[in-house]
Amino acid sequence: MYRLYYAPGSANLLVHLALLEIGAPHELKRIDIEKGEQRSAAYLAINPNGVVPTLMIDGVPHGEAAALAMLLAERHPEATLAPVPGSTERADYLQWMLYLANTLQPLFRQWFYPGDHLPEGADAIKQAARAGIEKCWTKIDAHLATHGPYLLGENFSVVDLYALMLMRWSRNMPKPATAWPQLAALATRLKARPSWKRVCDAEGLIEWA
Amino acid sequence: MYRLYYAPGSANLLVHLALLEIGAPHELKRIDIEKGEQRSAAYLAINPNGVVPTLMIDGVPHGEAAALAMLLAERHPEATLAPVPGSTERADYLQWMLYLANTLQPLFRQWFYPGDHLPEGADAIKQAARAGIEKCWTKIDAHLATHGPYLLGENFSVVDLYALMLMRWSRNMPKPATAWPQLAALATRLKARPSWKRVCDAEGLIEWA
Repeated sequence: MYRLYYAPGSANLLVHLALLEIGAPHELKRIDIEKGEQRSAAYLAINPNGVVPTLMIDGVPHGEAAALAMLLAERHPEATLAPVPGSTERADYLQWMLYLANTLQPLFRQWFYPGDHLPEGADAIKQAARAGIEKCWTKIDAHLATHGPYLLGENFSVVDLYALMLMRWSRNMPKPATAWPQLAALATRLKARPSWKRVCDAEGLIEWA
Repeated sequence: MYRLYYAPGSANLLVHLALLEIGAPHELKRIDIEKGEQRSAAYLAINPNGVVPTLMIDGVPHGEAAALAMLLAERHPEATLAPVPGSTERADYLQWMLYLANTLQPLFRQWFYPGDHLPEGADAIKQAARAGIEKCWTKIDAHLATHGPYLLGENFSVVDLYALMLMRWSRNMPKPATAWPQLAALATRLKARPSWKRVCDAEGLIEWA
């Protein structure tokens, strides 16, 4: 049994979508970020960084959204959310997961929390993040144009769920991901999957739902 | 057969160390960053981002250092560089790989190339990166104190190689990783492995060797 600690629309969205795509029974436990529940002693005991998501697996807490998505994909191979080890698509899968994790997602952290490490540098950091995020969208859009329709080609995977979450995060930016045509098409395609409506209902998402 | 495109001491170091730990036959091809070889048409054809490393596997180029390290670990399970899927340590392994990839490594990119996306914000970005990197070392050091001696506990893994590369990158910072006692001990332990001397010789590394 899985239990997902989440805050609506946060990095848990990727893990939540993966659980729904798999059809794995799970409980949800909301963490109220505005009330600072992520810094409560009870939550820090299971997630020392004080961030969402935490996924409780058989009573043991685990963190890092992208890692959890990869873990779920390999725990439930029947859901075919990732190319299996040894397959020719495996390198591309790892490469894209890591690209999103180490290039695009960190820029969103800078965009949303630019003053985290140096408050007086916040504005510069935010604008640099915007420029970096737009470069990433340009690159991914070009990749989809030649290697789509999904990020790994013909087959839907957890990489697409990751991209979908990040695209949603850009919705109120000066130039959201959906300003790029291939990304807009990918978002439309992914939002037509039953998992999208279910995740929006479960997390109470209204914007970009 | 593997062929690794590298620049001395760059992100290829992780992949190179993994190849040496595995004992996998490989060729090395140096990319001269100072001469801008990473932006040559020939290199961009195999690595459109113009970065190292590229690992050629059976003639097909692949990128993203952390992804390549994970790929090598699963292609060569006999080298036991990573807990196997289904093991209890698997979640920790993925979690640490992703933490280093999406939290610590991107801060080094900001530290080394602060003006990448916004030249006028470079100074603020660099100082924020420094603060962020030091928070990461504090966190990892505390983890090693209670859960060491390696990042996954009793067993050496590719996560340690990743941490070693990142520690080396901090060597000329105001507060290098080895200012933290557990990290210093980990670096000493890892540098005693035959792979370290071999990688330094092969890449011609002199500093922090």
